[in-house]
Amino acid sequence: MMESNDKYGIKRAVPLAFEEALEKTKEALKAEGFGVLTEIDLKAKFKEKLDKDFGGYIILGACNPKYAFEALGKDMDIGLLLPCNVVVYEENGSTVVAAIDAKKMLSVTGSDELEQFAGDVNEMLRRAIESI
Amino acid sequence: MMESNDKYGIKRAVPLAFEEALEKTKEALKAEGFGVLTEIDLKAKFKEKLDKDFGGYIILGACNPKYAFEALGKDMDIGLLLPCNVVVYEENGSTVVAAIDAKKMLSVTGSDELEQFAGDVNEMLRRAIESI
Repeated sequence: MMESNDKYGIKRAVPLAFEEALEKTKEALKAEGFGVLTEIDLKAKFKEKLDKDFGGYIILGACNPKYAFEALGKDMDIGLLLPCNVVVYEENGSTVVAAIDAKKMLSVTGSDELEQFAGDVNEMLRRAIESI
Repeated sequence: MMESNDKYGIKRAVPLAFEEALEKTKEALKAEGFGVLTEIDLKAKFKEKLDKDFGGYIILGACNPKYAFEALGKDMDIGLLLPCNVVVYEENGSTVVAAIDAKKMLSVTGSDELEQFAGDVNEMLRRAIESI
């Protein structure tokens, strides 16, 4: 079941263990034409930097190079809002996958043209999350 | 001279070559308590994926672990908006450094509490960019 977080993303609880959900999320993003450019392991970072325990939490940075190239042609500062984040995390014994609402995020640019792009990107992100 | 991009960030043209500006930006972020968690080389990505030529353009993902940990305690989905991006790029023969306006970006969450956090983060980003 897909749900919105009512604010700035879409998310789903998936019936998969954390590691499996992470692998399937990466595959789903690649199948939709996204490169996974970055991967941040917050659990490991919090342990290393703060000596705090935290559940599994990975931030993936997903980017469709063609869309990114065109967006930069319209606004050189748009790299401040790239890539699109997709997160996989453990919460109350289940695994959650969520993707940023690119349209909402790009609304801060005030550019209708970029928001239109973002609508396409959202469709691709939604399909990726649905397919996991 | 510091300027806003009037939309969603602050930026400066710096009198430095691209590579030097990049190194100084990383040092400045570390001095303000940010870890540089990710580094995306868009020029290399565009060449590799699209065979397109592009100027130097690096997206750094900067994160203060203490702030990130506290923000996640308030909203588990906030990883969709982390880390804070800082970009270094070449444009018309000069080098530009820009940082996201964290307050503007976190405004999409609709949370006053998170926006307050973001105000502190903005001050740290501003000091970092000013010091380059």
